[in-house]
Amino acid sequence: MATLTPKQAQLFLDKNFAVVATLKPDGAPQTSVVWIDWDGENVVFNTTRPRAKGQNLERDPRVSIIVWDNDDPYRYVEVQGKAVLDDKGANEHIGKLSHKYRGTDYPDPKGRVLVRVSPEHVHDYGVE
Amino acid sequence: MATLTPKQAQLFLDKNFAVVATLKPDGAPQTSVVWIDWDGENVVFNTTRPRAKGQNLERDPRVSIIVWDNDDPYRYVEVQGKAVLDDKGANEHIGKLSHKYRGTDYPDPKGRVLVRVSPEHVHDYGVE
Repeated sequence: MATLTPKQAQLFLDKNFAVVATLKPDGAPQTSVVWIDWDGENVVFNTTRPRAKGQNLERDPRVSIIVWDNDDPYRYVEVQGKAVLDDKGANEHIGKLSHKYRGTDYPDPKGRVLVRVSPEHVHDYGVE
Repeated sequence: MATLTPKQAQLFLDKNFAVVATLKPDGAPQTSVVWIDWDGENVVFNTTRPRAKGQNLERDPRVSIIVWDNDDPYRYVEVQGKAVLDDKGANEHIGKLSHKYRGTDYPDPKGRVLVRVSPEHVHDYGVE
């Protein structure tokens, strides 16, 4: 296991976007842009189980998440680890993310799932 | 095989950044931020063979590339396909990318490799 430095963690806490890479049924990679969060121990994002990325993570939890500084994409942090899915509190959490990114309530917060990723490998570029 | 619409292709041509997801030896995903290009048929980026992503692609060419609009990260395009590596013209191409992104020559253009990805699957969010 690894941990994030305060500067690395801050990139996940700030209003930056991230890309999540998961594995399709045939093992090929798939990517999507997500809202991102950090809970002090885990990188956290929010999806739904029926989505491709939710289905992928239920089958194979291995994931890579990369966040970059919106003001300077040459500063980025990659976290590799295994996803743990949790329905509890997920509808509330998408509301928290919606306020962080859009400043408004999430329009229809239901059926969400929290994804927590404890960092196993961390790669840093230009952060510290 | 798939093709890109003009608006999708334009995201790769503009001065946007992309994330490339490749597969590690154990099949887990790995991501990095790259400069990106489009040659009319292929998504194109530039790396070196000794780098993790170069080594990954030599072992398993399956790749996902996602590019987002720097001015609006809610507009993005994901391309999935298989990478073809080519040393020819790669040192010149990193110079072209350096001028696109930094407006200057690339400091030490040697040992580069071009990576071309013909789109097999294309996913679009907010582009068209």
